[in-house]
Amino acid sequence: MPLSPDQIAEIEAARATPRPTLRAVSEGMEAHLYRAHEVLDHGFIRVIDYMGDDAAIVQAARVSYGAGTKHVSNDAGLIRYLMRHWHSTPFEMCEIKLHVKLPVFVARQWIRHRTANVNEYSARYSILDREFYIPQPDALAAQSTVNNQGRGEVLAGEEAARVLEWLKADAGRAYDHYEAMLSQTQPDGSPQQGLARELARMNLPANIYTQWYWKVDLHNLFHFLRLRADAHAQYEIRVYAEAICKVVADWVPLAYGAFEDYRMGGVTLSSKAIDCVRRMLKGEDVTQESSGMSKGEWREFQGVLG
Amino acid sequence: MPLSPDQIAEIEAARATPRPTLRAVSEGMEAHLYRAHEVLDHGFIRVIDYMGDDAAIVQAARVSYGAGTKHVSNDAGLIRYLMRHWHSTPFEMCEIKLHVKLPVFVARQWIRHRTANVNEYSARYSILDREFYIPQPDALAAQSTVNNQGRGEVLAGEEAARVLEWLKADAGRAYDHYEAMLSQTQPDGSPQQGLARELARMNLPANIYTQWYWKVDLHNLFHFLRLRADAHAQYEIRVYAEAICKVVADWVPLAYGAFEDYRMGGVTLSSKAIDCVRRMLKGEDVTQESSGMSKGEWREFQGVLG
Amino acid sequence: MPLSPDQIAEIEAARATPRPTLRAVSEGMEAHLYRAHEVLDHGFIRVIDYMGDDAAIVQAARVSYGAGTKHVSNDAGLIRYLMRHWHSTPFEMCEIKLHVKLPVFVARQWIRHRTANVNEYSARYSILDREFYIPQPDALAAQSTVNNQGRGEVLAGEEAARVLEWLKADAGRAYDHYEAMLSQTQPDGSPQQGLARELARMNLPANIYTQWYWKVDLHNLFHFLRLRADAHAQYEIRVYAEAICKVVADWVPLAYGAFEDYRMGGVTLSSKAIDCVRRMLKGEDVTQESSGMSKGEWREFQGVLG
Amino acid sequence: MPLSPDQIAEIEAARATPRPTLRAVSEGMEAHLYRAHEVLDHGFIRVIDYMGDDAAIVQAARVSYGAGTKHVSNDAGLIRYLMRHWHSTPFEMCEIKLHVKLPVFVARQWIRHRTANVNEYSARYSILDREFYIPQPDALAAQSTVNNQGRGEVLAGEEAARVLEWLKADAGRAYDHYEAMLSQTQPDGSPQQGLARELARMNLPANIYTQWYWKVDLHNLFHFLRLRADAHAQYEIRVYAEAICKVVADWVPLAYGAFEDYRMGGVTLSSKAIDCVRRMLKGEDVTQESSGMSKGEWREFQGVLG
Repeated sequence: MPLSPDQIAEIEAARATPRPTLRAVSEGMEAHLYRAHEVLDHGFIRVIDYMGDDAAIVQAARVSYGAGTKHVSNDAGLIRYLMRHWHSTPFEMCEIKLHVKLPVFVARQWIRHRTANVNEYSARYSILDREFYIPQPDALAAQSTVNNQGRGEVLAGEEAARVLEWLKADAGRAYDHYEAMLSQTQPDGSPQQGLARELARMNLPANIYTQWYWKVDLHNLFHFLRLRADAHAQYEIRVYAEAICKVVADWVPLAYGAFEDYRMGGVTLSSKAIDCVRRMLKGEDVTQESSGMSKGEWREFQGVLG
Repeated sequence: MPLSPDQIAEIEAARATPRPTLRAVSEGMEAHLYRAHEVLDHGFIRVIDYMGDDAAIVQAARVSYGAGTKHVSNDAGLIRYLMRHWHSTPFEMCEIKLHVKLPVFVARQWIRHRTANVNEYSARYSILDREFYIPQPDALAAQSTVNNQGRGEVLAGEEAARVLEWLKADAGRAYDHYEAMLSQTQPDGSPQQGLARELARMNLPANIYTQWYWKVDLHNLFHFLRLRADAHAQYEIRVYAEAICKVVADWVPLAYGAFEDYRMGGVTLSSKAIDCVRRMLKGEDVTQESSGMSKGEWREFQGVLG
Repeated sequence: MPLSPDQIAEIEAARATPRPTLRAVSEGMEAHLYRAHEVLDHGFIRVIDYMGDDAAIVQAARVSYGAGTKHVSNDAGLIRYLMRHWHSTPFEMCEIKLHVKLPVFVARQWIRHRTANVNEYSARYSILDREFYIPQPDALAAQSTVNNQGRGEVLAGEEAARVLEWLKADAGRAYDHYEAMLSQTQPDGSPQQGLARELARMNLPANIYTQWYWKVDLHNLFHFLRLRADAHAQYEIRVYAEAICKVVADWVPLAYGAFEDYRMGGVTLSSKAIDCVRRMLKGEDVTQESSGMSKGEWREFQGVLG
Repeated sequence: MPLSPDQIAEIEAARATPRPTLRAVSEGMEAHLYRAHEVLDHGFIRVIDYMGDDAAIVQAARVSYGAGTKHVSNDAGLIRYLMRHWHSTPFEMCEIKLHVKLPVFVARQWIRHRTANVNEYSARYSILDREFYIPQPDALAAQSTVNNQGRGEVLAGEEAARVLEWLKADAGRAYDHYEAMLSQTQPDGSPQQGLARELARMNLPANIYTQWYWKVDLHNLFHFLRLRADAHAQYEIRVYAEAICKVVADWVPLAYGAFEDYRMGGVTLSSKAIDCVRRMLKGEDVTQESSGMSKGEWREFQGVLG
């Protein structure tokens, strides 16, 4: 369970007192504010703040296009048009701030998305908690034999047990030593100096949990979600992306619907691929050889056509 | 007067119905929401939305520094500490969205601040209004004789009159032709095709007004304000920066106070300059020759010391 | 003609003396260095510097993927794989610096691409030249009747002549007054103060030429080119993008080939659209009604299928 | 020793064949190209490519300021002027690409500098080497008692020995298990599936080495160096910053000189602090009480005045 009773009480206190505002309010998002959505064994995401809603996207687009936008009959149609034609700036007018608790190896992937604001818990400054990600049995997968950066089947019995045992024991021992190095008391009770926090942390494995505030605009969030909620993303970051997807669907339902249709569910075809589609629709029997594609591209193309 | 009765009614309507929210609320900012602060002859800035307040900065810092921040006695002290030590990420946790109406030549300077989100009125898509910036007599200054990018004295009588006459007449004529080129009717009433908007706009001078939504985090806003509210900034952008300063002072008074002390009012001394200060405080009579500085640097240094 | 004899001599001098380097060298790019490629009536692009080549993209990818990349048989295949799967970071390892001379209204579109470095000629600091973009007759198009931000047919005789006359006369007069306002001499030869440059420039129309150094990485350049070399981009920026495309094709031929196939020539289909394709390939007769798409989407979809 | 004989041979091969280029060449940088500068026990930095030199900074500034810059007598003076007045864009016109091998906990600090391009070795895709940072005895420091994010004295005998023993043993065991989990063979020689790389890596501690290509412009590099070569930076990242400083001094000696004087050696004084300096120079005996500063600020101010 990721939250302590103190933390739950804090969240309920923060939710107890609504205040009046003249800003755009998303009812769907108000229901999420501060509440933790559990992810993995000790992680969570929770919304700390947000700016804007579907109407704010439309409003920004209308500033850009002036009276010209009136011919689009409604907000949903305009938002779909913007998404379809990669008009990204109106989506940048919405912003979200999340509090995320996540394993360090997930944080290392996540931080590669540069257009965001981050305040991470500092292990130079403070002491990390004894919390490590240990996969559930069904997430403990073998290396894929076809994809260098993917997973294959779930590990079988003894091997799985051995892996879990190592992950737990190594993390536990590393943390014991972390504490002992930091301590100003030796095991026998006599005093010692205590290693600097900024050094002691180097002993901790990548499955230890960290946390941060992460603030991002909706356009860049969609980019993050498209890559990280994708079936090819590593499972441990994908579950975070999926939890965020649910929140975004409640925050800006029209924009999220367009995102699902055009980005998550959409596909990009190369000029060779779209040419093949045209030929196939005319009745031609296109093969890999006559497609102009490499074997890998052809296999992916076949996958797209189902 | 930059606002039409319709626009004023729209603003009052937007302000009429507060709604409950669980988010951080800045009372100072609520009073500004949607209201236009007039700038120059037809321009304005107005706050469309905001995220966070002074407490949000503190909260983000405490995520980073954990329990370690408790030794700083209060929020004001912590915010001053963050500002003094260039810990910029907590300030990035606040965000503001402004609607700005401004002359194109000001917009061209403004847009150079890249870390912001912008939706500008599109003159490819829509037709610009007949509104041009014409300086007040006291803003009509001669070229500085000492500073290549500065102003000198205010222009005297006839010359000022001639300049104003040209600015007005050229803008008016350019706009007349803009309209005539766009029109699907010739002056004599017979039909014509009408030039594409994206082409016709090229006839318009740089003092025509445009408008945009501009969204930026507080750290980058402070950077903008430090450069553009500075005495060396061009007057026509400085008045926008000054109007924004007033709003920010009401939004995040503690952060703004620290910004004023450490950034706006602060000075950066080179290693040579601080070395001179140390020698002077020990009683040495330092001259330009013995300072190691160039004449220009020494003159600026003298200016700093008052 | 955009270049003066002095400028041509300067370019030839810069090209006269090759120097040895240990860095990656692109022969195709060396042939372009410093030379001006003319664009529009007074504009140009020229390459001032570059970093990296096709091999640098491959090298960066191999750092990321280690020995795992060896199964891709060759550089071209690996680069195509990276482009197909949106692995953008290896393309960021190449950089280009261009000197561009362009009309201000084109510069205003261009600058919206934020991830780039820019040094623009300062009209606060210096005096602009008397050079304005005046469209060729075949670029003088009417407003599109179907697309709010597009062009229709070329303007016919008298209307075209009238437009050109206004564009030329207004620009000329505006520049005459610009010079007269800046001057420290009145028309009658008596002295005057001379208006500040930062003010006088506001009288100049948006078709005056400016120039800048623009530096960008290859990934962001491809993004710029995809949007600005597209058929829907305004003609006056598209010709710049096309001139850059030719240079890039000589610089990184493998990457440019992949870009052409996957980005310029590629299409993105929504989940609805790809579903329709699948149904059509199975022999179903899909109509707009049964497609789930709006009329606009269906029309665009029909366009894609040819 | 960070480099294998193979790697040294590869570097020498890369340095063996200079090729002609028409680009700006920095002789100082050519001497560094590809060569590894050792940092910590297994790390290094090496220059893979660069763009521009001191003259490129001047050239970009002259594009912006036109003929107006001629009054600055020479390149060194102009570069110092640009640095002093925070004219950052000309420095962005230079770019450097480094290959860096560094411990993961250093990489996590480094990556927070967002305006850079990165290709990191992927532990999802490939297998990490058995290399861990183990501090030298003189880098093994106790937690500072005055600074939450700093170090105090060097650890004494037995405690130091115990810490080193833990760091070595835990890293070694974690890596043994990493290998055993990845392996498709059990310890007894019988086959097993082998855990996915993307999962196995989570067992590795933060002192394991990773590597990346890091590309950044000179302005943002200076910002990185100012923060990370500072005395308050963690020692393990500071030694990387210092190694880079040496390279930059050879690459752009004029810019680096200005950076040293105005940034590394410079100080920023608040308006309160500069007011105190003025009063002190007039002979007033200013105390903390009369300064308007808090105790912490006053202590730092005293430090600046030496």
